[in-house]
Parts: sequence; C-alpha cells; structure tokens
Amino acid sequence: MATPRIRFTEAEFLRRQNLVRQAMTAQGIDILIVSDPSNMCWLTGFDAWSFYVHQCLVVSADEILWIGRGIDANSASLTTYLPETAIHPYPDHYVQSTTCHPMEFVGDRIRSLPGSCVGVEMDNYYFSAKAYQTLTQVLPNQRLMDATALVNWQRGIKSDAEIDTMRKAASVIEAVYSHMNEILVPNMRQNDLVAEILAAGARGADEVFGDYPAIVPLIGYGPESAACHSTWDDKPLAPGAGFFAELAGCHARYHCPISRTVYIGTPSAQYRTCESLIADCIAQVADAMRPGAVLEDVAQVFYSALAQAGFEKDNRCGYSTGLSYPPDWGERTMSLRPGDRTVLQENMVFHFMPGLWFDDWGFEMSETIRVGANGGECLANVPQTLITVDA
Amino acid sequence: MATPRIRFTEAEFLRRQNLVRQAMTAQGIDILIVSDPSNMCWLTGFDAWSFYVHQCLVVSADEILWIGRGIDANSASLTTYLPETAIHPYPDHYVQSTTCHPMEFVGDRIRSLPGSCVGVEMDNYYFSAKAYQTLTQVLPNQRLMDATALVNWQRGIKSDAEIDTMRKAASVIEAVYSHMNEILVPNMRQNDLVAEILAAGARGADEVFGDYPAIVPLIGYGPESAACHSTWDDKPLAPGAGFFAELAGCHARYHCPISRTVYIGTPSAQYRTCESLIADCIAQVADAMRPGAVLEDVAQVFYSALAQAGFEKDNRCGYSTGLSYPPDWGERTMSLRPGDRTVLQENMVFHFMPGLWFDDWGFEMSETIRVGANGGECLANVPQTLITVDA
Repeated sequence: MATPRIRFTEAEFLRRQNLVRQAMTAQGIDILIVSDPSNMCWLTGFDAWSFYVHQCLVVSADEILWIGRGIDANSASLTTYLPETAIHPYPDHYVQSTTCHPMEFVGDRIRSLPGSCVGVEMDNYYFSAKAYQTLTQVLPNQRLMDATALVNWQRGIKSDAEIDTMRKAASVIEAVYSHMNEILVPNMRQNDLVAEILAAGARGADEVFGDYPAIVPLIGYGPESAACHSTWDDKPLAPGAGFFAELAGCHARYHCPISRTVYIGTPSAQYRTCESLIADCIAQVADAMRPGAVLEDVAQVFYSALAQAGFEKDNRCGYSTGLSYPPDWGERTMSLRPGDRTVLQENMVFHFMPGLWFDDWGFEMSETIRVGANGGECLANVPQTLITVDA
Repeated sequence: MATPRIRFTEAEFLRRQNLVRQAMTAQGIDILIVSDPSNMCWLTGFDAWSFYVHQCLVVSADEILWIGRGIDANSASLTTYLPETAIHPYPDHYVQSTTCHPMEFVGDRIRSLPGSCVGVEMDNYYFSAKAYQTLTQVLPNQRLMDATALVNWQRGIKSDAEIDTMRKAASVIEAVYSHMNEILVPNMRQNDLVAEILAAGARGADEVFGDYPAIVPLIGYGPESAACHSTWDDKPLAPGAGFFAELAGCHARYHCPISRTVYIGTPSAQYRTCESLIADCIAQVADAMRPGAVLEDVAQVFYSALAQAGFEKDNRCGYSTGLSYPPDWGERTMSLRPGDRTVLQENMVFHFMPGLWFDDWGFEMSETIRVGANGGECLANVPQTLITVDA
C-alpha cells in the first residue's frame, strides 16, 4: 500500500500543536510565525519544495493559518488537514520583488488576530533579515519576540509514530550501505559511486520508499577527507587512500544519518586504530544514553575515551535529529558537547558523530541512537567497521 | 582528466570580484558581507555543504576574508585561491549556541577594516534575522546597508567559461531525459523513477560529471500535478494520468533546468493542446530573447500567445539561472513578468518556465535559454514534446 500523502493522524498533529501552544503560553507569545519548513511540516504535514520563497504558518490560540505563494496553495491542501479557509495564498507579484514583500501580506493577516506579542524564528532557516525588518514596519502595534527553536524543542521527544518512521529511514540507510558494499570497486569515479548511493536511497527498502535527505551525500577522498562537508566530483577512488561517506536514509522527511569510512586497498594502522577506538566509543556512548542522563556527561564519556587514546576533538560530537528539510538534518536544539545540560528522555534521538578530521585525512563512523529505557539503541544495523575494498 | 577542484582560473575570479567592487563603490558600500553560498562560490570558488551554519565572505576594497566554522576551513583552502591568512575559522562553541553568535566573531574582524558602510544581504538565503540583529549590536560605529542581490546582479551576464560549464550541465540533463525515456514503464513507483533520475544526473554525460542540483526532482502525478513543487512518494505511475518532472542537469554547481510532462497511456486532448501551444511559445520567446529586448516584453510574447489560445497564467514565466546551491537554482534578480524592465544582454541565461497549473492537473515544458546575438538558444537538446508511455 502506498504511503499516505498526509503521513500522520490528525490526533498526532493536534498533539504537536498542543505542545507548541503550551510553549507559547509559557513564553507569553500570542501569535507564532513559523517559517522553518521542518517546523511547518512537523506541525501540519505541509510538504513541498516551496521554501525558496517566503512562506509560514501563523499559530494563534485558536487557529493555524498557512501563508505562502499562490502556486503552492494546492500543496497545502494536499498535504495537511488544514481547512481551505486556513490557506492564505499571496499573489505572485510578491515573489522576489523589490517593491513589496510577502511579510506585508503576513502582517495584514496578523493584525486581525487577537494578541500583541508575536514570536518569530529569528535564527531559524529561511526567515530573512528583511522578513524581520518588514514585519517590524507593518506591525507597529505588535511586539516581535525571539522564538528561535521554540517549535524545534517540542520535536525533541519523538512519538511512537515518529520512531516508527525513523526505523523505516534506518532500513533505507541499511539498504544504501548494503548496495554500496556490492558495487564499490577501485578507481570508480566519485560521481558514479554517488549515483549508486542516490539511487539506492530513493529506492529504499522493501515497502519503504526513500525520500530525499536534507543533505546530499558528503564524500571526501584522500586529502579532501579532511574537509568534512565536501561533496563529490569525478576524481577516481584510486587505491592507497580512504574516503568518508556521510549519508542518511530518509523516509517521509524523517532521517537516519550514518557515516562510514572506506579504504581502497590495505588500510594503514591509523585507520585501524580509529576503527576500534570509535566502535568502542559508540558502545560506551550508547550505554550512557539513558533517561535522566545529562547530555554533556554523555559527550564527556566520548571525549574522555578519546583523550585516553591520545586524540583530541574540539567540536561537538552529535546533535538531535528527526524530521528535516535542507540544509540540515539536525534539529538545532540539543548538542553533544560541554555546556549542554539537557536531561535525556526516552525517545529522544541523536546523531552521534565522533568524526575525526586531521590536516590531510579524516575518519567518520557515526550512528543514529534512540534513547531507550535501558540505554541507547542504534536505529540502523550497519556493521561498525572500516569498509575496505580490495585493490 | 578529472575536473579541477578550483573550477575557474584566478583571472575569472578576479573579474567577478572587480564587478562586485565596482557595484559596492557605486552604492557607497565599503565592506560587503556575502552570506549567500551561491555568491560565495561565484566570488571565490568556495564549495562545501557548510551553509547550514553561519559563514560569509567579507569583501573590502583590498581584501576578501572567508569566515566560517573551524571544521570547514579546510574546504576554503581546497576550493579557493584565498591565501591562508584570509581564512578566519570561528571556534565550534559558536555553532547553534544560545549564548554567543558567529556574527560577533564576524563583527570583530570587520571593526579592523577601513570604512563605515557595511552592506548585508538582507533578503538572501541564510542571512538570518538574528545575524542582522547581532551585527547591529556589535558594530555600533558602522552603518548597515541593504545589499540584497548586489552580487546576484553581477552574475547575470555569464562569461564564456561559465557558458561552457552550463553547456556541460545541459549535456547532463540530456542524458537524464534520455535515460528516463528508456526506463519508464507503467505502474513503476515514483521513487523508483526518481532513483533512475538521480543516478543518471550524478553519472552525467561522457566526461562530464553530474553535481547535485539545487532542487531535488519535482514530480507531481495525477491530481498532485496541480501542486508544482511537490516531490515523490511511492505511489505507482498508473495508466490514465500524467505527471510533470521538473529537473535540472548540474555540473560544477551550474544548472540547466528542463521540465517535461509525461503521460502514461493515451493522453487526452488537453495534453496535446498544451504540448503544441507551449512548443510554439518556446519558439516565439526564444526568438524574442535578443540583446536590447526588454524582459517584460519577452514575457508578454508568451502571455499574449497564451491568452490567444484561451489560457491564463497569473505567475511569472521564468527567471535567470546559473550557479546555485539549495534551495533554488534561480538567481533572484530578473523575472520574466510584467514590470521587469531589464534590458537583455548576450549571455544572460533564463529558465523559461511556461508551467500551467490547473485545479487538478498541470502541464510543464520548460527550457533554459541563452541570450544570443541573433536570438535565444536552448542550451539543451531535449525533444519539445509530451513524453508518452504505452500502457
């Protein structure tokens, strides 16, 4: 049976909306403008590649409005439970205009709603400086308040339906790595490898279709493996060097990121050292991921093991993940690093990313881990080894 | 031979930087903060999927600085001609922090540069409201000025080297449609079709590797073809309905978007009507795309032909295209619509998008057209027909 276009029950969306409204009340926000496409989808199901123009949800105590470009109103009808009266398309001349701005249209809608404190996502994606400036001009009687990540924080603890969707994403990434192992040969061009990765990711697993991950395959070969966000070109994967692949399975916009490192030929000792060290770290960190644990303590388990082995990492080693749109599959709330005092709760999900990047090489082996009652559970079953290819 | 990691000569980047500095002088801007990843890449070559955190170029009369996250500094070294002294990585604790912001770090660098007028891309992607607010706080002695699209406008007329790259992107999309024609069968799942599209797009054509387009394949089947920015799921492409595919070939970050409509089975008369109408419109519009023509007049050629055939379209029918990163392959400067009085010049390139979206179906057949001395040239050679699949 095909996946329903509206991916969750109305009750599930009401649960989410209630959480957001409670957070609004707690922060004294009457009206919330939600511009981040991940938050828009999580709250209502709205799903379209329309976030390159201004669009938003307007959440008040009694209503949720969708405001977007006219040609995207059909997507709002098809992918949400919102009534037609809640869908407010703006005319096309607002698009990328130098004489008017879509936030003027949004302001007109907001003025008719009760309440004077308007929350905006100051540092979320796609809410531009100009959008903010325009709102301050057209809403002189309202007070704009920073509500960055207000919705994102409600997404931290996943419902069972969300965990089920993330397990499906996990099955997609398992299929990707399994396919990659089958087709990897020395000297293949990076883009030919990526072609296979992308195809396997869209085909998915059994009855589970693959959606597009919020980040394209990140591939760094040879010296470029020191550049952790590099993408592919056509250089051949020649023997005598390694590369990292940072990939995710995605289903219905939910992600399961998994990274691995590949070596073409016989790996040097440093690769084997990293392999066993990081596998051990994953086991220790997963064991520490229990309800009640503090996030920075979990991170410290990793940093300590690393230091003991003589390595150092001066960047965070993970973050919460779930539903997302480009450019990031992280939720931008919790980070596995010193100073994050979040207390873990069951069904939080983290991408644990113990990536090590040196001056001219790097090693990645990461896992997506669900906080379970008795410790963390790696959602995907991809062997925790360095992948080697006979040269 | 593999594509060089720095894709253009230093002279080509200097040409671009000179154009930007001239525009800065004309607008009285001493220092320009360039946050849009497309603009960052166009100006220096900087290429990485790192735009999910704050990063920018700082352009002054004498210098260009790259400022970004520490783990992305290697990408700046590998993909640009910038000297190491121009690369200013910020420490990782600035990432998604609630107590400090990367723009504080940027402000520290800017205070040491000469000049008081600082241009910022108020309505470009990834320059958030919070980034703006932070800069206003940390630069009390500088004046921030809106420089939205300042760099984008310099990108409008392509150099020969850029046109050459776009021709390579055109060869990629030709390969994609050719492959799609080979593998399309009735009842295949949408995601299985997309798997083939993605793979063909990455494999590319002959010696030309496929890069990731700034937008994933847009697919709308049956009633969802009325939703022009919808993406795929696993519904089968059953006979008796049509779908649109909005796709692009991409090479070294340059795009050639091409849309087509596919019908499974024998298409109804309305599809055939649209097919011949739009093919005719493409010929007329291409012919009108000559140096000296005014953009809205070119658009009117299309709107008039459409009206004569009894159709109406109340949204723009195209925009300039070229180098880009997600979420858009448009340049957000010129639009084919009433009111745009831009005068065409040779080697401007437009995605002409005469898409027609009705209540429960849609028709797309688009072309990427270079303004040539004697009229527009469709960069790709993909047959301008409705694609039909025997059911």
